[in-house]
Amino acid sequence: MRPDIDVEVREVGLRDGLQSVSTFFPTREKIAWVRAEAACGMPEIEVCSFVPPKLIPQFTDALEVVAASLEVPDVIIAALTPNLKGALRGFDTGVHKLNYVTSVSESHNQSNVRRSTAESVEDFRRIVEARDQHPQAANTRLGAGLSTVWGCSIEGAVDPDASMDLARRFVEAGADEIVLCDTVGYANPTEVKALLTRVVGELGDDVDIAAHFHDTRGLGLANVFAALEAGVRRYDATLGGLGGCPYAPNATGNIVMDDLVFLLEGAGLKTGVDLDKLVEVREIVARNLPDESLYGMYALAGAPKGFQPASRHA
Amino acid sequence: MRPDIDVEVREVGLRDGLQSVSTFFPTREKIAWVRAEAACGMPEIEVCSFVPPKLIPQFTDALEVVAASLEVPDVIIAALTPNLKGALRGFDTGVHKLNYVTSVSESHNQSNVRRSTAESVEDFRRIVEARDQHPQAANTRLGAGLSTVWGCSIEGAVDPDASMDLARRFVEAGADEIVLCDTVGYANPTEVKALLTRVVGELGDDVDIAAHFHDTRGLGLANVFAALEAGVRRYDATLGGLGGCPYAPNATGNIVMDDLVFLLEGAGLKTGVDLDKLVEVREIVARNLPDESLYGMYALAGAPKGFQPASRHA
Repeated sequence: MRPDIDVEVREVGLRDGLQSVSTFFPTREKIAWVRAEAACGMPEIEVCSFVPPKLIPQFTDALEVVAASLEVPDVIIAALTPNLKGALRGFDTGVHKLNYVTSVSESHNQSNVRRSTAESVEDFRRIVEARDQHPQAANTRLGAGLSTVWGCSIEGAVDPDASMDLARRFVEAGADEIVLCDTVGYANPTEVKALLTRVVGELGDDVDIAAHFHDTRGLGLANVFAALEAGVRRYDATLGGLGGCPYAPNATGNIVMDDLVFLLEGAGLKTGVDLDKLVEVREIVARNLPDESLYGMYALAGAPKGFQPASRHA
Repeated sequence: MRPDIDVEVREVGLRDGLQSVSTFFPTREKIAWVRAEAACGMPEIEVCSFVPPKLIPQFTDALEVVAASLEVPDVIIAALTPNLKGALRGFDTGVHKLNYVTSVSESHNQSNVRRSTAESVEDFRRIVEARDQHPQAANTRLGAGLSTVWGCSIEGAVDPDASMDLARRFVEAGADEIVLCDTVGYANPTEVKALLTRVVGELGDDVDIAAHFHDTRGLGLANVFAALEAGVRRYDATLGGLGGCPYAPNATGNIVMDDLVFLLEGAGLKTGVDLDKLVEVREIVARNLPDESLYGMYALAGAPKGFQPASRHA
């Protein structure tokens, strides 16, 4: 983690936000978004997914977006890959970090990436080997995202032991980071704190632990506070909460980056992000996606009188 | 607290929600709202404020609303009073509970009720004496609400010691309950947990402790989870988040009752409230206030697959 910050927030709107948006976000505007948010102090940005363009046309320009993003100073550039093939494309770019994703529930993993979780772990192992042998990828970090950790839209409840076990297998396979995800917005703060306390306790010395919450049922930031209490110091979010949930029409998707930064800075935790500059970046998203709803209470209400963010900016 | 519940949620939409709404909510519809929400198992409803009708015309029908509400079985009927005069009107009705309100910050109290906090405590002491001598009010409980506990829109930051001290003075003056309020949506969960842990520890054996959060900057339910961790078991909220903040146009007001119940029931805490029935009651608010925004993510997204609320309903 960057030495000037206490908590690492990571913008995933260009990937998790845009993947559910059918309007193509122009390449130069994606790059403008990355530059503007990096200039606010954002430590890490996930800029695309290495999926076949036929599957998600939004990411047709993945190579161009990654190349331009890697020119931006002082920000870790990440991308998602669902498999080895995508990872190999990523390694060639020299991207700083690749995030892989597996569902804890078997039926969700089958539906999402058409294989068992055991096969997903094996695929990840091959990605680690490929990274270790790739000339441009020696420093590329590999994150393993576990989705449906707190419930699955197909199977319902998910056993915390299954998440714990899968997390261990990814650490053993060589993951640098484990990201526990509530992609469908089922998580409750009590369950979040319980499981993440176990994960941080058992695996926190070996790998980075991150959390990824959606606000589909309004508990996203309550879950962040629960995860903070468990010792998690890395959080995904999207500017303006971009990214609806395909299972819940009209419902919001990712937690709102701006409100997340407000929570953390108000709690005395430095994010390194200039909140007021960050709010201005929403305009780039709004002008390119006029039909999408943007969320976020801080952007509407503004700072409390006398508010002192933990990260002071000159 | 009712023996069948772990956490008491209290609907304050008819008071805190409606006080900022200029459209008059018809008396018979207010009563329909009380009946419908009580039928969901809501343990307590604040139905009006005993203020001069000239000041807030919405509460012109206070006596009629209280009288009809007191006919509804199995629900505590509460009302707000800003002073002794309002309390005397309340005592005559036989209302179950009267809530008084004082700002911790002097300038906010001056602006809101035109007296010092010391004068407010003295006024409350007279209300307690009046209650003790009033033939219809022997069982009327008296709540003391402290507002601007986590920050003030005039003074900015508020010293936690000032809130602690004022809470002690109200307990000493005879309050049955202390309600710590973040009326302007400034509170951060870290500060909430810190102060409420002190309040519950020092005063929790003597009086009931409740919390009242607004979601103005998106942290309302995170603050609830923080308060739960501190041991608070009583929460105000409004159906659909009714009640904007006069200081923040377009921003939401009170935390959303429906999402609050979802949080608590998912955490294994019985509220006694039937969540799916509760969501249907939003229709009564919506049809009478077509120009007001209603909030709430649970109402949009619905229950997670396999969701088991802690309160089981036959």
